[in-house]
Amino acid sequence: MRPELAPVAGVRLAATAAGIRAAGRDDLTVLELAPGSRTAAVFTTNRLRAAPVLVAEEHLAAAAPRLLVINTGSANAATGAAGMETARAVCAAAAEGFGLAPEQVLPFSTGVIGEPLRLEPFAAGLPRCRDGLAADAAAWWRAADAIRTTDTRPKAASRTVELDGEPVHVTGFAKGSGMIHPNMATMLAFVATDAAVADGPLRDLLREAADGSFNRISVDGDTSTNDALTLTATGAAGAAPLESAADPRLPALREAVAAVCRDLALAIVRDGEGATRLLTVRVEGAADAAEAARVADSVARSPLVKTALFAGDPNWGRILAAAGTALTGEVDWGRVDLHLGATRVVRGGVVAPDYTEAAGEAAMAPEEVTATLSLGRGEAADWMWTCDLTHEYVTINAEYRS
Amino acid sequence: MRPELAPVAGVRLAATAAGIRAAGRDDLTVLELAPGSRTAAVFTTNRLRAAPVLVAEEHLAAAAPRLLVINTGSANAATGAAGMETARAVCAAAAEGFGLAPEQVLPFSTGVIGEPLRLEPFAAGLPRCRDGLAADAAAWWRAADAIRTTDTRPKAASRTVELDGEPVHVTGFAKGSGMIHPNMATMLAFVATDAAVADGPLRDLLREAADGSFNRISVDGDTSTNDALTLTATGAAGAAPLESAADPRLPALREAVAAVCRDLALAIVRDGEGATRLLTVRVEGAADAAEAARVADSVARSPLVKTALFAGDPNWGRILAAAGTALTGEVDWGRVDLHLGATRVVRGGVVAPDYTEAAGEAAMAPEEVTATLSLGRGEAADWMWTCDLTHEYVTINAEYRS
Repeated sequence: MRPELAPVAGVRLAATAAGIRAAGRDDLTVLELAPGSRTAAVFTTNRLRAAPVLVAEEHLAAAAPRLLVINTGSANAATGAAGMETARAVCAAAAEGFGLAPEQVLPFSTGVIGEPLRLEPFAAGLPRCRDGLAADAAAWWRAADAIRTTDTRPKAASRTVELDGEPVHVTGFAKGSGMIHPNMATMLAFVATDAAVADGPLRDLLREAADGSFNRISVDGDTSTNDALTLTATGAAGAAPLESAADPRLPALREAVAAVCRDLALAIVRDGEGATRLLTVRVEGAADAAEAARVADSVARSPLVKTALFAGDPNWGRILAAAGTALTGEVDWGRVDLHLGATRVVRGGVVAPDYTEAAGEAAMAPEEVTATLSLGRGEAADWMWTCDLTHEYVTINAEYRS
Repeated sequence: MRPELAPVAGVRLAATAAGIRAAGRDDLTVLELAPGSRTAAVFTTNRLRAAPVLVAEEHLAAAAPRLLVINTGSANAATGAAGMETARAVCAAAAEGFGLAPEQVLPFSTGVIGEPLRLEPFAAGLPRCRDGLAADAAAWWRAADAIRTTDTRPKAASRTVELDGEPVHVTGFAKGSGMIHPNMATMLAFVATDAAVADGPLRDLLREAADGSFNRISVDGDTSTNDALTLTATGAAGAAPLESAADPRLPALREAVAAVCRDLALAIVRDGEGATRLLTVRVEGAADAAEAARVADSVARSPLVKTALFAGDPNWGRILAAAGTALTGEVDWGRVDLHLGATRVVRGGVVAPDYTEAAGEAAMAPEEVTATLSLGRGEAADWMWTCDLTHEYVTINAEYRS
């Protein structure tokens, strides 16, 4: 069921079938941001960074963005100097059409790596986008739909909070299904609020929200060349700007931004390529934060854990073995417990005395399951969201280009 | 086609259906080693180490092994103190039956993690093994067959070299199909030679051979709780002992041991769960050895690379993206080349000017393909062997326990 989306004052959107991808399918999307908008962004940690990522970073350093231009069909990655020229030319064309400087345009691309991005479709598509700009919920949904690649459904989320008694909206949309792993995946996400937020607090809001959402999901352990997440504050709701981290209104806005990002990240992992189930991997009692993160990551990316999840198989040995891969030094397994949902499966490193296979199967039956692994080594905790590894994942990725 | 196996003087083997696993299937194997044999071993780096691994390490430190006892059906891992008792009891029972001290027996187990290993089948099976000991090639094949779990075929290899004009044999067998990743996987391998080798050079031979074979293969990125590789030198061929690393006969023996281990490792990855194709990932021109290893590992474990391999899809962008995940700092992609087989696909970070999709498809058509990635960052090189990720992998691992 689609959530209700609240339009964000100061943002207009449009999408069109520009012929970059398959004929007749929306593949070019723009977000126009009102004058005065502030935008923060985070990009992929993959060292093969696509041309649009490099250009977006340059432009972000030079000016406050007024236009986001997103295409599917080609990632414009591993395209060298020609790809950089194309990304710049896209920005120049968009700037001319929308009456902006090229630095005020950020480009985003997603699709096959290594194929050239043709410029011609933008020449026809950008004017159509300009003429079709709209601010309503339908425009947000159309944009969410247009940026999909292997996603089976559009992903968007919204929250409304009151700052000083005035409603402020946070709405975003995202794409991502495969090549998904922390620190951005083959994922694009655009979030906007009509609150007014200064650059410093805006960057903090974005970092915190990403850390609790997009940096917690794994579909296949691969990170991508094009990932990007932006957070725009238009200020168009009219409330006084949030200038400092001490602003008492910040917690409410932070929670709204975090909630929208969480919704979008969960939507991505639930729609992971071929996914049928969601597993939350919680690690508690780790020696330190790095160990907690390492163990959660190892369990979340284990193909054996993910195929057992597909089967609804309470194969707890695979979870312990995946944790063992990520641990170092001496481990006292006698202190290790594991729960699947509320069912205690492992106590003291061995199968719990009251555990039955039937109870384990019941615990694994829901579409969404939490595995809680307590290591008994310290106080650190972490978590990851992952999906199952299915026949459909293989089908999609063995046939993606054909 | 099965390779010819040369029996190793000083080694006798037997296997029997002891009822540990399914009725009627060999699941208990012993290797009896002649007095005076020296044995070196390496074990899993997973911190969830199975009881037999812990007991084998203890025993190896206490005495020269005379008997290896291997069961399938249960890994005796994550079984706590009871599992340790069982592993010790297996050694005690075998020691009594074969007239040895318990410390002269090394236990090995493979199968499901977390289920108890029952002792009763050993009581009946071990005497049958003792009575059935044989030294011929058929006995080696029966042992290779008996230690299989999800392996679709037995894996054994052999080399004969001349030391001082006398033939010396190196023969080994292995099991492993899933949960395969460097530093031992859910893999057992037993190699023996009738050369006489002192402990120090024997350990070096083993380490070098493992580094060029079992530590280079990845099926699914998961490491296991029970992996072990042993190398026994019985000395029964009668040649003078190799006592030092400077012995001029050592290179020939080293190459034979390495070749047997390489054959076994390649047999494992070719028989990876559901595998239909083998990919050799060569990384050249890395900044240092650690970077070369990291990049090779990242490409070899990427599900997107492995599904493209399944499809025979020359999807080179996924290889570059997997490399980009593992690199750090500034990367000059203009220096990066990629070959699939002899076909140059990428030159200077972008698709090579003379490359055609048809040439790429032809390069990917063979069952065994080499991808050579030149980073242009330095002189370090490394490689990994991996297999494709297929529907059958998902089927096997979603149904393993049912």
